[in-house]
Amino acid sequence: MSYKENYPSKLLEEAVDAISSLPGVGRRSALRLALHLLKQPQENVHHFTSAISHLRDDVKYCKDCRMISDDDVCSICSDKSRDHRTICVVESVRDVMSIENTGQYRGVYHVLGGIISPINGIGPSDLTIRELVGRVADLVSPEALFEADAPGQGGSEAEVILALSGDVEGETTSFYIYRQISQYGVKVSSLARGLGFGDDLEYADELTLGRSIVNRQIFKP
Amino acid sequence: MSYKENYPSKLLEEAVDAISSLPGVGRRSALRLALHLLKQPQENVHHFTSAISHLRDDVKYCKDCRMISDDDVCSICSDKSRDHRTICVVESVRDVMSIENTGQYRGVYHVLGGIISPINGIGPSDLTIRELVGRVADLVSPEALFEADAPGQGGSEAEVILALSGDVEGETTSFYIYRQISQYGVKVSSLARGLGFGDDLEYADELTLGRSIVNRQIFKP
Repeated sequence: MSYKENYPSKLLEEAVDAISSLPGVGRRSALRLALHLLKQPQENVHHFTSAISHLRDDVKYCKDCRMISDDDVCSICSDKSRDHRTICVVESVRDVMSIENTGQYRGVYHVLGGIISPINGIGPSDLTIRELVGRVADLVSPEALFEADAPGQGGSEAEVILALSGDVEGETTSFYIYRQISQYGVKVSSLARGLGFGDDLEYADELTLGRSIVNRQIFKP
Repeated sequence: MSYKENYPSKLLEEAVDAISSLPGVGRRSALRLALHLLKQPQENVHHFTSAISHLRDDVKYCKDCRMISDDDVCSICSDKSRDHRTICVVESVRDVMSIENTGQYRGVYHVLGGIISPINGIGPSDLTIRELVGRVADLVSPEALFEADAPGQGGSEAEVILALSGDVEGETTSFYIYRQISQYGVKVSSLARGLGFGDDLEYADELTLGRSIVNRQIFKP
């Protein structure tokens, strides 16, 4: 069933144009959503549009880690109980939320804002790599090392975790960052790759299974 | 994978709340869309929100048929080449667009704005049934009949087509409307029901197939 585009109203057509510009929303869905909004009370629609405008206009990014934040420094970076000598490098805001939801990580983050992708015209200078290098340099500065040696800090070693996706672009970005920060002598790690918990060997792809064998771990019952 | 709701920003959370209020959009999709909008140029986001605000604030409904319109009378009702003595009664704006897209109908419409549904608390008075009855009464007024008999009009018979869905609520609404307008002596018809073109008998539901047999048509090769 194809849908010819004869809109009874210019206003409706413009709203459908706008809504269908969202990723994954086709023109039929956009029409459905526009007609839904049309049926809502006017104040609900104003609330809807102003929530989106406010997000775009008033959002801030943490000056340290570039995470979305309501303040100049995000709640993670301003949390003194977290380990500020471990920086987890991720592509996007969503990755931070995903890792936070695991409840397994107590360090801080650095949001790159994307990934090196020559096909999409995204180079290292489009990302926050320079800022990351600055943070790493600060970690190994004499003052930071003195502070890390202070009682209670346990002389913790600085570490950068490259938590980028396992595809070619992610690997390229990881390698690029590694080359930029290796001079500072910090520990650089990446996420463990292997079979997911509960995964069946039969359905695992060969690359994942192959790496799982190569990177096998000591069995700890 | 459940998604715990720890938003790094109140603004983001409010935007996700607003977007996920749309039908068929879950909180995960809403987050994805919010982060997408966040990456767009500010003017694009303003264009997006203003298109929706304008639709809700400035849309008009045709004073005759209650179709969405940019003017007081919609383009269909103001088209003199259409048959104004045939009124197709539909539930929603979308139905008008669907029927218009077939290119098979040259009459006018009447948009009910919903369907009688006691479960959802929608009664006849919530719909534009009274306005429909008024239009039907006008169709059989002496002036209208005189005009219909005028040369060129071919004395066309007034007809109301009940193009509502085939479920219980649709049938109820059709029956209610029929009772309201039957006193005016206009022809009342409903959409043909049966197998869709190209449908396979094997996969047709029994109700549709049964009605297709009862309402069988003379074969015209």
